[in-house]
Amino acid sequence: MSSGAFSRLTIDTNALKSNYRFLQDKVGPTCSVAGVVKADGYGLGVDVVVPALEKAGCTFFYVAQWEEALVVRSLTQHPIAVLGGLVEGLEKRYAHLGIVPVLNTPSEVARCPADLPAIWHIDTGMNRLGLDPEDVAGLFAKHPAPMMMMTHFTSSEDVDASPSQQQVSDFDAVAPVSIPQSICNSSGIFKSDLWHRNQVRAGVALYGANPTPETENPMSDVVKLETRILQIRSVKAGETAGYNRTYTFPKDTRLATVGLGYADGFLRSGSNSSALYWNGQACPVVGRVSMDLIIVDIGGVTGIQPQEGHWMEVIGPHQSVDQLATSWKTIGYEVLTSLSSRAERVIV
Amino acid sequence: MSSGAFSRLTIDTNALKSNYRFLQDKVGPTCSVAGVVKADGYGLGVDVVVPALEKAGCTFFYVAQWEEALVVRSLTQHPIAVLGGLVEGLEKRYAHLGIVPVLNTPSEVARCPADLPAIWHIDTGMNRLGLDPEDVAGLFAKHPAPMMMMTHFTSSEDVDASPSQQQVSDFDAVAPVSIPQSICNSSGIFKSDLWHRNQVRAGVALYGANPTPETENPMSDVVKLETRILQIRSVKAGETAGYNRTYTFPKDTRLATVGLGYADGFLRSGSNSSALYWNGQACPVVGRVSMDLIIVDIGGVTGIQPQEGHWMEVIGPHQSVDQLATSWKTIGYEVLTSLSSRAERVIV
Repeated sequence: MSSGAFSRLTIDTNALKSNYRFLQDKVGPTCSVAGVVKADGYGLGVDVVVPALEKAGCTFFYVAQWEEALVVRSLTQHPIAVLGGLVEGLEKRYAHLGIVPVLNTPSEVARCPADLPAIWHIDTGMNRLGLDPEDVAGLFAKHPAPMMMMTHFTSSEDVDASPSQQQVSDFDAVAPVSIPQSICNSSGIFKSDLWHRNQVRAGVALYGANPTPETENPMSDVVKLETRILQIRSVKAGETAGYNRTYTFPKDTRLATVGLGYADGFLRSGSNSSALYWNGQACPVVGRVSMDLIIVDIGGVTGIQPQEGHWMEVIGPHQSVDQLATSWKTIGYEVLTSLSSRAERVIV
Repeated sequence: MSSGAFSRLTIDTNALKSNYRFLQDKVGPTCSVAGVVKADGYGLGVDVVVPALEKAGCTFFYVAQWEEALVVRSLTQHPIAVLGGLVEGLEKRYAHLGIVPVLNTPSEVARCPADLPAIWHIDTGMNRLGLDPEDVAGLFAKHPAPMMMMTHFTSSEDVDASPSQQQVSDFDAVAPVSIPQSICNSSGIFKSDLWHRNQVRAGVALYGANPTPETENPMSDVVKLETRILQIRSVKAGETAGYNRTYTFPKDTRLATVGLGYADGFLRSGSNSSALYWNGQACPVVGRVSMDLIIVDIGGVTGIQPQEGHWMEVIGPHQSVDQLATSWKTIGYEVLTSLSSRAERVIV
């Protein structure tokens, strides 16, 4: 064992760059792909993600919060937009640092300094953040026009595109074509070329999750996560595994306990429902996921047998981010943003 | 707004110290309370937790992984035990740094240097990590005796103590009374004074979660989590909230969108099931929790109304760690270890 780490997260920056270029090719030269790097680059680390995206040609970044923008500012000279709005009291610092507020409320539009380039976010169905379309004409009458206008899809990954089409129509009704526009998230890019406009905002697809869940994933895998086997033991039929004995073994088998748990972002909802992989073979999680440890049943492994000290695959060629998410009853986004802070990071 | 932070985590070190002293009083002078500070002190930060526990009298710490021990070593001179075992190749470094391996496998016992104080972990029902009781006599015959022997309960928080009693009996059958013993976790401490022995290992109770779920929580609250309201809007009956429109409003109401999401550790399983609090009044989460944002229905608030920029309570006097966990279909441990890395931290 070269280090003491119990888990290892490998990030393939070539795959990340390739994903960026694939999306840029897809939207063509009249549209640019902005990189969404909020939540520490969806859990991969902005220090790794921002320079790689910049090398691939990215010239505009989005974060969720002001303090994320400060970190990203230390990594790139390009504009950074803050989706979470214009923090009261910090208005002058945005211009000073080349940080672009995404204005979500009429009061933010009113507070925005006249010389600060800003994006207006029009809410067309999320009811989360954004300006009411009914208010937009009045804001144009009273305030300087924004550098860009955006909206956000509620369900662009769904096969049924009609709700997204309705959102685009509602957006178009208030957004003059003379101002640059940004509508699409990752899934939206694949739904209609008519929605690409001037800029798309790529997030989860850059990091390898499937933006087109109904078809094969067009993106390359960026993340691999492995964990060490700390102990192997034999158990008899009728014995149980883990906290509160939620799993009883139907027959004699062998178990591997690995050094990964919910404190590493392997959510507890994977108890008795997820699997890890050994040499391409699924080994089911038995019993509850605990804080630092998971037990898997390796009794079905054929061929070379796993040993204490070996690595098992958590995310990799046999289990995608999206597949793991399904076994946790969630989505790939949450798998990525939960990724281990205790893991040893390997940057390829 | 004094800073740009969208969430604020307050840690009450006096409550933490008070919890430590309460447990030490409970076990009495013949037993010592070790502090379990794995997973970055259950998400609170070892840099805060370890010095506070030491001031309260703690002289022995547990972590899960070797690399956690290195961090804790920079914070205290007291012994630190690594539950995850004796990492192969690093055996000599344990002694050098005063780090105590918890030996879980016969091969770890065999690899352990004769002059390195170690703890033997006997597995009595978890089937996770630990020595098989059948192997213990043979190990005593061949290897130096450990400084302590331990085991770990599967379900000490259950009202039915008989499985725990069976585990203690199985432990006692192989653990000579001449060697110090450690059996209890937080819940076990409250189940039987006969199980306290020489050392108990307190984790989640120190951080304020209830070790006795069937009765009132004897511990003091340590953690408070708040989040900023970024936008307030009115919606009409029949409108929807958030991704995939999973919630439809039965009547006109008002919404607050706050700057906290699953990337901050507010798990997505809280979608449409959790609540935040305003002035002691529950405001239900409507729609899906998104990466950086949550929408709550504030239409039922009476009295002073929440405004953009105000803070709402996520964890605090009106919603305990355990109550929030229930709304996520999990346990307080997972709430704590998921706590926001983006939050502004306030240490009281």
